[in-house]
Amino acid sequence: MNQTAHVSPLDRSRQAEFQQVIDQKTKPLGALGQLEALALQLALIRQTSTPTLSNPHLLVFAADHGLTAEGVSAYPAAVTYQMVLNFLAGGAAVNVFCRQNGLQLVVCDVGVNGSFAENAPGFVKYKVAPGTRNMRHEQAMTPDECEAAMDAGRTLVDGVHHRDCNVIGFGEMGIGNTSSAALLMHRITKLPLSQCVGRGTGLDDTQLTHKLAVLQAVSDRHADAQTPMELLTALGGLEIAAIVGGMLQAAQNKMVMLVDGFIATSALLVAQAIAPSVRDYCVFCHQSDEAGHRLMLDFLQAKPLLKLDMRLGEGSGCALAYPLLQSATAMLSEMASFASAGVSEKV
Amino acid sequence: MNQTAHVSPLDRSRQAEFQQVIDQKTKPLGALGQLEALALQLALIRQTSTPTLSNPHLLVFAADHGLTAEGVSAYPAAVTYQMVLNFLAGGAAVNVFCRQNGLQLVVCDVGVNGSFAENAPGFVKYKVAPGTRNMRHEQAMTPDECEAAMDAGRTLVDGVHHRDCNVIGFGEMGIGNTSSAALLMHRITKLPLSQCVGRGTGLDDTQLTHKLAVLQAVSDRHADAQTPMELLTALGGLEIAAIVGGMLQAAQNKMVMLVDGFIATSALLVAQAIAPSVRDYCVFCHQSDEAGHRLMLDFLQAKPLLKLDMRLGEGSGCALAYPLLQSATAMLSEMASFASAGVSEKV
Repeated sequence: MNQTAHVSPLDRSRQAEFQQVIDQKTKPLGALGQLEALALQLALIRQTSTPTLSNPHLLVFAADHGLTAEGVSAYPAAVTYQMVLNFLAGGAAVNVFCRQNGLQLVVCDVGVNGSFAENAPGFVKYKVAPGTRNMRHEQAMTPDECEAAMDAGRTLVDGVHHRDCNVIGFGEMGIGNTSSAALLMHRITKLPLSQCVGRGTGLDDTQLTHKLAVLQAVSDRHADAQTPMELLTALGGLEIAAIVGGMLQAAQNKMVMLVDGFIATSALLVAQAIAPSVRDYCVFCHQSDEAGHRLMLDFLQAKPLLKLDMRLGEGSGCALAYPLLQSATAMLSEMASFASAGVSEKV
Repeated sequence: MNQTAHVSPLDRSRQAEFQQVIDQKTKPLGALGQLEALALQLALIRQTSTPTLSNPHLLVFAADHGLTAEGVSAYPAAVTYQMVLNFLAGGAAVNVFCRQNGLQLVVCDVGVNGSFAENAPGFVKYKVAPGTRNMRHEQAMTPDECEAAMDAGRTLVDGVHHRDCNVIGFGEMGIGNTSSAALLMHRITKLPLSQCVGRGTGLDDTQLTHKLAVLQAVSDRHADAQTPMELLTALGGLEIAAIVGGMLQAAQNKMVMLVDGFIATSALLVAQAIAPSVRDYCVFCHQSDEAGHRLMLDFLQAKPLLKLDMRLGEGSGCALAYPLLQSATAMLSEMASFASAGVSEKV
């Protein structure tokens, strides 16, 4: 396991050239707004003024959480298993949006408390454990479990990269995982825990107060965890660790990375703490309605493409935003320039 | 010409039924946010819980503006003609985004100062005049010209509707048309003119001050115009009048209507003043970076799907947002319910 990922910052030596290409397209300067910034980023990642997106994948990692024993979620823990079955049957939101927009969906059981038929299409079993331990009383994972989960993410990302995939999104399913995400956020951003904890899939006021108290106790219990790896081991989830590993590998491979959702973004906070340049490869897809997500994005100085008040996870925002990445590359490849179209420039 | 459009409000008798279908999908209640509101609206417009979008079209109306003689635009008036040629060659942003997302683009010359080959594919000539008159000195259009331009919009919309199109967006090209849009906005919303006037395609501070002074003079010159038709005739553009007519017809046909951009939204302000229920059929696609557009959307109590800081017009935001409409219908048609997937509901 190589925790010190070799992630290079973006090579910006051709940035002025790429910006010039964008500025010469037949539109007022800057008139395509955020799409132009996205186009520049894609050009920089792929090192060409006509980048293409190939074989897009969405990896959804699923795992259970021992902390659910403390009553921190509105849904029973069994829903993790049930929703994975729903993914495999093609009926979840992320299935629908991936089919619509042409992303290959791969579901990976990295720690679900339940067994699946192993030969389902689009399913990968990489089960490290049947869920995390109850982090109110012990570390969520042993260091070996955490490394194994990260390896699952790395391996999957490398596998699709070898099949010519250069753009990848990350999703998750895990009842209880907003608790891990909030704790990682609290410890990495140093924001007060109360600003990091939200209603997850639908807690009421009393349940939210309870969740906050439980998470404060968990954070206190693991006050000695300091490094990104220590925090991930103590407070993470197996699916979060897998995403951290996957993100580090994707950035190392210079792939375009789709980031969406409170939980996947908490994984990015960890990945960035390990290798700051990971951030350069991220396209932020959707700002969640989960209260803490906006603060996470502020911390990352990220402006998401969509803000549709969703709070679903699964990587759904990645799949929904993907056509905007295609628009950015189509703009670069297909739009005429002032010169080629014979259009007058600004007077 | 029938200015009193027969636009029916949405039939909401099945709203509870449609909402129930959305609520039973395998996701926390409301977790798809704005996409759920969109799905409900599409179900209500089409009166089915599994609406489909068929043969989507984007109509781009182009026309010139006599007021450009007063120096209100950053680009020379000839750019209207040049950009239509660019549309016909397939090189403008809206061409690229329509091709990407499967919308049929139709470009209509309703008042461009210049001639085009009439047999270009996707081009319709319905030229009422080679541009509006200079509204600093006279009405932009005669009542007959305004009605003819509206008829162009109605006719085109009806034509595609008869070819099984049930979803339609409106775009425009017309150097100087942010001036008409700002004036229509000022007179219909009653907001101060200074809040309605923006930089268009890129004015600097001095030019902006000049534009504001010119538009104030124009507004004073036509202080007697009061009804929506009088305002459109005095202050509009031929392309804006065409969009007004097209929007009224689309709503009358119970089509889903894509609204984007400062100029097209000014046409909606007029259409809504004529037939308030037009608003029910509108999906707001993008909030422009043009200062007044947010205020227009506030006036319409509209929340757009995208906010990408674009300020291009052409209907580009309609084409970019269209995949989100497809996501909303796919969600309704393809997502499993809790019952069908065997997933437990909230405890």
